[in-house]
Amino acid sequence: MHQSPVDPSGRAVWRPVGIRDVDITGGPFARWQRINHEASIPLGMEQMERSGALPNLRRAGGEGEGPFQGYRFQDSDLYKQLEALSWEHVRAPESEYARFADEAAAVLRKAQRADGYLNSHYQVVKPDKIWAELEYSHEMYCAGHLFQAAVAAARAGIGPGVVEVARRLADHLVEVFLTGGNDGIDGHAEVETALVELYRLTGERSYLDLAAKLIDNRGKGLVKDSGMGMLYAQDHLPVREAGTAVGHAVRQLYLEAGVVDVYLETGDESLLECSLRRWEDMVATKTYITGGHGSRHDGEAFGERYELPPDRAYSESCAAIASIHWNWRLLLATGHGRHADLIERTLHNAFAASTSADGLRFFYVNPLQRRDDLVEDAYLGRRREWFACACCPPNIMRLVASLGSYVATTGDGSLQLHQYMPGTVAGKVRVETDYPWDGLVRITVEEAGEWELALRIPAWSETTYVDDSPAEADPDGYFRIRRDWQAGDTVELRLDMTPRLSYPHHAIDAVRGCVALERGPLVYCFEQADQPEGVDVAELALDPRAPLRVKPVADLGGAGRTVLIETDAVAVHQPRGGLPYTTKPLATSTAVTATAVPYYQWDNRDGGAMRVWIPLA
Amino acid sequence: MHQSPVDPSGRAVWRPVGIRDVDITGGPFARWQRINHEASIPLGMEQMERSGALPNLRRAGGEGEGPFQGYRFQDSDLYKQLEALSWEHVRAPESEYARFADEAAAVLRKAQRADGYLNSHYQVVKPDKIWAELEYSHEMYCAGHLFQAAVAAARAGIGPGVVEVARRLADHLVEVFLTGGNDGIDGHAEVETALVELYRLTGERSYLDLAAKLIDNRGKGLVKDSGMGMLYAQDHLPVREAGTAVGHAVRQLYLEAGVVDVYLETGDESLLECSLRRWEDMVATKTYITGGHGSRHDGEAFGERYELPPDRAYSESCAAIASIHWNWRLLLATGHGRHADLIERTLHNAFAASTSADGLRFFYVNPLQRRDDLVEDAYLGRRREWFACACCPPNIMRLVASLGSYVATTGDGSLQLHQYMPGTVAGKVRVETDYPWDGLVRITVEEAGEWELALRIPAWSETTYVDDSPAEADPDGYFRIRRDWQAGDTVELRLDMTPRLSYPHHAIDAVRGCVALERGPLVYCFEQADQPEGVDVAELALDPRAPLRVKPVADLGGAGRTVLIETDAVAVHQPRGGLPYTTKPLATSTAVTATAVPYYQWDNRDGGAMRVWIPLA
Repeated sequence: MHQSPVDPSGRAVWRPVGIRDVDITGGPFARWQRINHEASIPLGMEQMERSGALPNLRRAGGEGEGPFQGYRFQDSDLYKQLEALSWEHVRAPESEYARFADEAAAVLRKAQRADGYLNSHYQVVKPDKIWAELEYSHEMYCAGHLFQAAVAAARAGIGPGVVEVARRLADHLVEVFLTGGNDGIDGHAEVETALVELYRLTGERSYLDLAAKLIDNRGKGLVKDSGMGMLYAQDHLPVREAGTAVGHAVRQLYLEAGVVDVYLETGDESLLECSLRRWEDMVATKTYITGGHGSRHDGEAFGERYELPPDRAYSESCAAIASIHWNWRLLLATGHGRHADLIERTLHNAFAASTSADGLRFFYVNPLQRRDDLVEDAYLGRRREWFACACCPPNIMRLVASLGSYVATTGDGSLQLHQYMPGTVAGKVRVETDYPWDGLVRITVEEAGEWELALRIPAWSETTYVDDSPAEADPDGYFRIRRDWQAGDTVELRLDMTPRLSYPHHAIDAVRGCVALERGPLVYCFEQADQPEGVDVAELALDPRAPLRVKPVADLGGAGRTVLIETDAVAVHQPRGGLPYTTKPLATSTAVTATAVPYYQWDNRDGGAMRVWIPLA
Repeated sequence: MHQSPVDPSGRAVWRPVGIRDVDITGGPFARWQRINHEASIPLGMEQMERSGALPNLRRAGGEGEGPFQGYRFQDSDLYKQLEALSWEHVRAPESEYARFADEAAAVLRKAQRADGYLNSHYQVVKPDKIWAELEYSHEMYCAGHLFQAAVAAARAGIGPGVVEVARRLADHLVEVFLTGGNDGIDGHAEVETALVELYRLTGERSYLDLAAKLIDNRGKGLVKDSGMGMLYAQDHLPVREAGTAVGHAVRQLYLEAGVVDVYLETGDESLLECSLRRWEDMVATKTYITGGHGSRHDGEAFGERYELPPDRAYSESCAAIASIHWNWRLLLATGHGRHADLIERTLHNAFAASTSADGLRFFYVNPLQRRDDLVEDAYLGRRREWFACACCPPNIMRLVASLGSYVATTGDGSLQLHQYMPGTVAGKVRVETDYPWDGLVRITVEEAGEWELALRIPAWSETTYVDDSPAEADPDGYFRIRRDWQAGDTVELRLDMTPRLSYPHHAIDAVRGCVALERGPLVYCFEQADQPEGVDVAELALDPRAPLRVKPVADLGGAGRTVLIETDAVAVHQPRGGLPYTTKPLATSTAVTATAVPYYQWDNRDGGAMRVWIPLA
């Protein structure tokens, strides 16, 4: 049995490598997995008591006093937490995790109703409204996260009985929404992809059928407007007709993961087609350079095409995760490296920025600019230990724990390497690299025989070498080597790590006249902490002809190892006073040195200003 | 008795001219007053039944069936509507208005409790929560609008008994919040300025004292967080300590009007000082070129300094009105023309754009950019006939009806002209002008004798003439002429109507690399409807050296008379596809002609794209 969160049995071009079969041994992601194990997951386990997730479920099981705590979707925090520590237990077993899973499983077994229903909010607070407020109840959303937790717990062999709880709830869903007369959807998509995962674990076909039906049910006006409009929940149009990603970004992206999952199992081409159509539109017009999605705080929404403000970017951490889920399924479905390219961009930037270097603080929102002297934001744009709506932290933890499964795929004996980090992959190769700091990736073959090794050539790598010869990607974005390998054979891939400036499309109004600095997979930003005394990040402007100097740093004040980029720039001064509109441009400028740091490492020092996009001088 | 909405008895440098003493006889504002009379106010009167405002108050008086309709502040719609038609009745008496006021007065007299309390939502829906949910109840907010309606009804001599209803409610407020033990504020400031107005009408000192106390009570944590944070309601800091405008823009701006009103009556300099400090900060960093305020949909908030996105501008119509109220009081308090300058900018742009040319549709939000093919906005960015939360339409109507009172002031026999439009002012002068289409303003003296005529010289008028001699504004922004006038004497003021390009301050990220086009007091925009076939507003870019050609138009497809501005420009093309970030700028351009229309006249034809800020070629 494969041990990956996604293990499609049907139309996949490639198949995932089991999570046990990838070992990440160095680099920023190995560091993050360690911090996740030692700091984030323990913090999350604590929060499951404090935030009410476990106590609520105990109340549903008839134990414990006091009122329901938190949001109606509070159960989902526990499910994501359980999923995170289960994947982490697969990777690096830990008795504390197993103990927590035991306890959680016991609570869930007790809380579940005899008919299979399980949702502490509706059981405790609104038993008369069960399945009656689908537009905002999050009942199926919570169920979906339970299903995913159960899949992980099964792979880890912890949490006794959780799979049975999940199956009983899934069977109940099938009775109500597939074979019963109830037509509906959950206002927050998520259960669709989860049902397919549970189908893959159990082989129970009705779970897949229900997922397909829930996708077909969307956009038919089967549930009410939650008050946020029909686009908010992607219920404005049937899935096959919708042409662009809209509304609540996380909902849209989870829905897409489900759409592709159903395609992968049923072969319904119309699903893959509509999802790819929205993907292309989204990538071209609604994607931040960090890989983030969601341009509006209002409605946590995508926003219009080319509406990509850096300061008010929502770019929710959960949206980055959901986008990785979707792109991974598209990669399996199409074998096209553009999806692995976007996963890389998202992993190293929007997603990696979500968590502090010590693993103890998290961003919900990942803007590309923070001004100084913030007033309106109650948290002054800093990471926080936890949130009243804590969807992000345990979601981050589950992806970090299962990162290994996004590194490579196999197919007919072949191996595709999608993400570069040191480690061993599927018993076939060992990877040595100092990526993303350096572009050299040395692959040593461990499995002899004739098979094809495919190496993703990122679109950003202008000049790429394999074993000292120039290497071009094929139309799918890979460089393929078919050989009769001997154990110990090596291949050296050299990606182009020359720092580069990126210009935004003319239609992106919010960053007109600006450039962003990138190197390899990393987007850079200018943080106040790295600028010379008296030089304000808000005043920086770049000369695109100035050399970009690479400066390795062993430890950036607790943010860890990094590579800074320094350049000659100017500081632009303009006095404040009167209306800020004048019939002549009034700014003057002076020469300064500007220093950039990888975006994912920002906000690990002070609460100073930050910008990804810098005006051209 | 003066007949102006604001008639300060205390520290005013200047005094308002009574609303009956100004007659606007031509130009866009006379047209608007006519449309307001014939279309908007009748529509509003109808809506007072349909939207529930009158029925709710009938229910409070024990008449009528059915549940409470609309928001908890629904009463305020009626009060603003009553105020609007009262001022309009002063200007142009109308029996239908008097009849409506009779009916409204009867309903109010019946709805008011014996102790003076009056609020239909709390009387009908939550009698046990009266004065117990100040953070969001809007009880004092509604009371304030009743007080203002009563002042207007008194001046109009309609709505029998409304003044008495208002006084009884104000006395009740005094009992509860001034002499009683209850300390608090209303989450939505408004009652402060209204109490001062009622004090001016009645001479009842306790109303002024209560207004002063409510201002002192702010920022002391006397009421709970409504869930939107303490900044939202300006309750985060004492009024004298707050350094910048924050939170819900309309609340902040109404509060400021009250702060200056209390200064005008009590002479408490600390109030004027703190209000001016915030005014300077706001003008320099948080004001749109249209005069609008409020940069965020989320929380309807000001946003951070220099956060001024054109597409997501909130710039609520009510904020424009509240800003005019505040600036008018500052003008009276300081005699400085910069406040009249901002009133002019706001009146002709952010405020004037709020209403369609036929007076039957309204903007709640006044953005400076509308993209084509909008998806996320349920109303596609168009004006609407009415709103569930209908604060704006009757608010617009009351300001249009009372516009005459913002035109001029007097002081010791002198006359100050602040806004230019054809008409007669205070029996002292007659004004003839084709403003804002033409810069010539001819003033004919009607009152003989020695007195000073002060003419505001707008900051935008680069070269100004008075009677063919170059004229400079004094430090307060006025050109003053003291003479022994003969009836029939004339003065000719010539303002500079050369079209001009305006550059944003370097720190305004959202419109970097763009310019706006202005002429006289009017900000222009580029609407799709005026561009040549095949030229997309989203693609326009301007050459700042190209001549700006002025093109008078008799009627712009129902939007009325206008002056278009035409210029040679380019259309910038960049293909869509893949990520919108590239290592080289990829845009190409072709020469085109671009045509701009006054911003206030936009959205009177189709739902096409619009931009105020255009990239530099």
